Amino acid sequence: MSSHGGPGDTVTLADVEVDDEFWSPRRERNRKVTIEYQYEQLEESGTLENFRRVAAGESGGFQGMWFQDSDAYKWIEAASYVLAQRDDPELEENVDAVISLIADAQGADGYVNTYFSLVEPENRWTNLHMMHELYCAGHLIESAVAHYRATGKETLLDVAIDFADLVDDVFGDEIQGVPGHEEIELALVKLYRVTGTTRYLDLAKYFIDLRGTDDRLAWEIDNPETLGGGEYEDGAIIPDARSVFTHEDGTYDGRYAQAHEPLRDQETVDGHSVRAMYLFAAATDLAIETSESELIEAIERLWTNMTTKRMYVTGGIGPEEAHEGFTTNYDLRNDAYAETCAAIGSVYWNQRLFELTGEAKYADLIERTLYNGFLAGVSLDGTEFFYENPLESDGDHHRKGWFTCACCPPNAARLLASLGEYIYSQRESELYVNQYVSSTVTTTVGDATVKLSQDSSLPWSGGVAIDVDADGASVPLRLRIPEWTESTTVTVNGEPLEASVPSEGYLELEREWTDDRIELTVDQTVTQLEAHPDVAADAGRVALKRGPLVYCLEAVDNDRPLHQYEDPSSAVSTEYRPDLLEGATVIEGEASVPDREGWDDELYRPASETARERTEFTAVPYYAWDNRDPGSMRVWIRS
Amino acid sequence: MSSHGGPGDTVTLADVEVDDEFWSPRRERNRKVTIEYQYEQLEESGTLENFRRVAAGESGGFQGMWFQDSDAYKWIEAASYVLAQRDDPELEENVDAVISLIADAQGADGYVNTYFSLVEPENRWTNLHMMHELYCAGHLIESAVAHYRATGKETLLDVAIDFADLVDDVFGDEIQGVPGHEEIELALVKLYRVTGTTRYLDLAKYFIDLRGTDDRLAWEIDNPETLGGGEYEDGAIIPDARSVFTHEDGTYDGRYAQAHEPLRDQETVDGHSVRAMYLFAAATDLAIETSESELIEAIERLWTNMTTKRMYVTGGIGPEEAHEGFTTNYDLRNDAYAETCAAIGSVYWNQRLFELTGEAKYADLIERTLYNGFLAGVSLDGTEFFYENPLESDGDHHRKGWFTCACCPPNAARLLASLGEYIYSQRESELYVNQYVSSTVTTTVGDATVKLSQDSSLPWSGGVAIDVDADGASVPLRLRIPEWTESTTVTVNGEPLEASVPSEGYLELEREWTDDRIELTVDQTVTQLEAHPDVAADAGRVALKRGPLVYCLEAVDNDRPLHQYEDPSSAVSTEYRPDLLEGATVIEGEASVPDREGWDDELYRPASETARERTEFTAVPYYAWDNRDPGSMRVWIRS
Repeated sequence: MSSHGGPGDTVTLADVEVDDEFWSPRRERNRKVTIEYQYEQLEESGTLENFRRVAAGESGGFQGMWFQDSDAYKWIEAASYVLAQRDDPELEENVDAVISLIADAQGADGYVNTYFSLVEPENRWTNLHMMHELYCAGHLIESAVAHYRATGKETLLDVAIDFADLVDDVFGDEIQGVPGHEEIELALVKLYRVTGTTRYLDLAKYFIDLRGTDDRLAWEIDNPETLGGGEYEDGAIIPDARSVFTHEDGTYDGRYAQAHEPLRDQETVDGHSVRAMYLFAAATDLAIETSESELIEAIERLWTNMTTKRMYVTGGIGPEEAHEGFTTNYDLRNDAYAETCAAIGSVYWNQRLFELTGEAKYADLIERTLYNGFLAGVSLDGTEFFYENPLESDGDHHRKGWFTCACCPPNAARLLASLGEYIYSQRESELYVNQYVSSTVTTTVGDATVKLSQDSSLPWSGGVAIDVDADGASVPLRLRIPEWTESTTVTVNGEPLEASVPSEGYLELEREWTDDRIELTVDQTVTQLEAHPDVAADAGRVALKRGPLVYCLEAVDNDRPLHQYEDPSSAVSTEYRPDLLEGATVIEGEASVPDREGWDDELYRPASETARERTEFTAVPYYAWDNRDPGSMRVWIRS
Repeated sequence: MSSHGGPGDTVTLADVEVDDEFWSPRRERNRKVTIEYQYEQLEESGTLENFRRVAAGESGGFQGMWFQDSDAYKWIEAASYVLAQRDDPELEENVDAVISLIADAQGADGYVNTYFSLVEPENRWTNLHMMHELYCAGHLIESAVAHYRATGKETLLDVAIDFADLVDDVFGDEIQGVPGHEEIELALVKLYRVTGTTRYLDLAKYFIDLRGTDDRLAWEIDNPETLGGGEYEDGAIIPDARSVFTHEDGTYDGRYAQAHEPLRDQETVDGHSVRAMYLFAAATDLAIETSESELIEAIERLWTNMTTKRMYVTGGIGPEEAHEGFTTNYDLRNDAYAETCAAIGSVYWNQRLFELTGEAKYADLIERTLYNGFLAGVSLDGTEFFYENPLESDGDHHRKGWFTCACCPPNAARLLASLGEYIYSQRESELYVNQYVSSTVTTTVGDATVKLSQDSSLPWSGGVAIDVDADGASVPLRLRIPEWTESTTVTVNGEPLEASVPSEGYLELEREWTDDRIELTVDQTVTQLEAHPDVAADAGRVALKRGPLVYCLEAVDNDRPLHQYEDPSSAVSTEYRPDLLEGATVIEGEASVPDREGWDDELYRPASETARERTEFTAVPYYAWDNRDPGSMRVWIRS
């Protein structure tokens, strides 16, 4: 097996060592708590037992959701990201054991799916709508690529290749169909990049191109009765596909799964938001490989729609619970669904958009999403997770330890473990510093070996020092100037730059680097943000932002019901409190609240009679909410 | 059969003739369209066929909801109110025919309920939770009393008496139980008042007193499996009582039906709001009869809780859709449920509270509810109805012609047809003018025959003239000074009063009346109302009110999305437009809206960058919304 490099040399996870005051404790908890707990859950939930039963030729007795296999794959993927960055013999042994189970469960034809093998072997590939068969295949492939890259071991990669070959033999030939939940498309591009085998890229393109081309979708195959759901062994309930794939009048609509029209024709981001992110990520991968202008235009149009009309200030997406997804432009109700996995999917997509274009705005959005929409999904102690991330709560929304549909915790584990992939990137022989996270990277740019050692004080203060050494080689560096900073000063070896620093985008620096030090100071002034006038939910409200962090008011810090705070002062003070929320900078200011005088037994009275008074408020970072006494929370404060 | 007068002489419906510019067209449509349509529906829906089948000794074949019989009773009641006020031989003939069917369907033992007789005759009185058996009995009794009072005919009254006797024989003796949906309690007091038979009053007291005294409710009887619901013939789905009568942990909770604790101990209005109103109305009736101080205290406490913490500015009640009812103090979300029937129930309750106390605040609330929370439920043409009455809509909430659970239209018909009952009242030999609706009344107060002829210009302007004649007898009159007026001038025969006019409550006038004219002018200045600071939904918002009418903004009249209007001017103009909404006074003013400059492709930006500009807005009466092009609506405008 020879590794194909993908789109030019890249910075790999193994090249980066993260040692950051903010992120490292979270990554450590992710490794020691979350990934460990996930592993225990694989046994607890019957996930591994499913593989064992298939390997032993048993039938029936399936446990868990019909996409239960993907839990094992996501765990292997997360564990592999850990193994890429550190030796951990015990973890490696556990991973190898699980891989061995999976390999044993693979059929002679390459098929691996314990649900179908145990429960309805005769129905392979008949219900692409709901049964996540190709979704599980995609996670198998992603885990195999991650494991191979981390360890060089090919056992799981061989399993993935054999299954991918089977899928490629079946689809486009005997079956014309696409998955109900996208995932395999981006996985196939990864498999192409690691193997160099073009049939995987072609198969990814087949799935992307076929999607939405037929008004009954291409996936109903010849078994239309599989549209109906039902209750399966061990209580798994499979939703009726008609409930998500039809209009009220009964006609077919694939919007839930982005299959209402071909991707290249889509004008707005629609449907289930995780599905959408995975599809758009795959399409961007495809565009990186093909440079197809129509596809690139579609992707950029969809990104613009999402970021200018359908995204929370936290980077969260998908307001509606019923279909876990997007609704209409400017529908950004603060009782948001904003699934943690959707924020993670957005990070995946934006990373690929950056790779495609080299534009800073995608790295900006990754930063916003990491620090807010994503990070809120994980409790400070790493043991509990939000599925939904509202921007306002009455106090009854809390993280939970695990979910029946446990997609968020493993996805969060994957992202935290692979954080190193997002800090540095290489494009066209330029080295990009995209995220300010204390870390070192050693990589080859052109003929030069470059070492960067970054010491960042974000998000709490705005100082970043980067030591650069390339043994005197001239290497172009690009440093992202965050979109949120109002002013940035940069020095090299203590000398201010002659050139001006752009207000956003990349600062380009090139010299013959030998033990040079770049220092950036980014402004962290608290700003009050306003939403577009068409966002009804935020009309007459502001959100506080400082650096990359969105802030919120929590009941535990504030005396009045949160809706009573109005007109927060623009002059505020900030203070880092080491003992609060594992260390956090709070924002303190004054706001106006109604005088309660005279309201004794009235419910409505002339507005002119109510006085207001100034009082103090305290805001904390949004990501940290719901880690103390339960209570209400709101991001958007009345202005 | 001799008529018992109830609590002293009263003004009956037959004494009042309504001839009002605002209300009479609505009452005419109610009579000609709604009541006529209801009659047709009795045949269409199988309601009458159910009675015929029972009379013919058939079994099975039941059509409609399990409380379908009540549709017939409500129609008879509404029709009887019409017949009390005018001759209508055709209507009277139809009523007699339906009554004859009901009488034929009555069992020898007095039992009448076509659902149980046709579907499960063996299960009488076994599922008091959900099966509305006593609810239907209550509506039978109410209709019988109304019909007897209107026509003097005793056919239906005899049916009701026989059934009430059966209920009284069964309950408190072989069965200890209370109905899941209150209604029979207030009906039994009516039956007592018209017959003078105290066992009906005692039975009403039994149901009221027993309610909430047992933590398993008193109604589970010996058939606990009837707690579960199911699907019955013709698709009627009976809800599982456990879904509404249990806490999340499975323990029993009668809050939905006000049975969580004895009425006299209840501190807050809770549960299904129509059920609550019917119970409290019955309890107030009981208090009128018994003067029991503990009961009166409880009723007044509940009224205070409702009106100071749990009522919309429209008089609507019950924000939550799931249980059609009350939630917590100050939860007044504008996406309100606020069922039309609950507003009607509130009118019933408040009328009894007035009768109990003689206090004007109850008549004030009747006025507020009639003009707003109730009237919005009926379309201008009288053919369509709201079940829910939100105070804010995105444009997707519209009245419908009829409902599967068609409780609102017949209830609206009952109220409109009996409007005359709310205008004048007699208490302790004083004659009260409670509502300003053009009408005449001739009644006996003490020994005097008094005739009042009222000419009111409400709600559009504030002039009211009342001609009084009592052949020179001295009769005390009490004229309600509406709580919303800021100033009131009163003249008698053109001469200003010497005494000052109270700011609210009653103006008392007594003289030897002979062709005298009283003229009131009430102030109709537009006021901006604010809600209590603990009402999160209305924080930073105001509602416009003029006279008794709450106003709203509708998209059809205003260029901008309604959430963009802010800071409405206190100086506004009003104009009566005869061609708009069948004639209505609109409010026009200026408000601030965001300048759209510079928002092209941004979703969030520093708040300081957005300018605002003044623009015109037009507000229309809330009751009239959704009678033109569909669109958004909001009552509470950002202040």
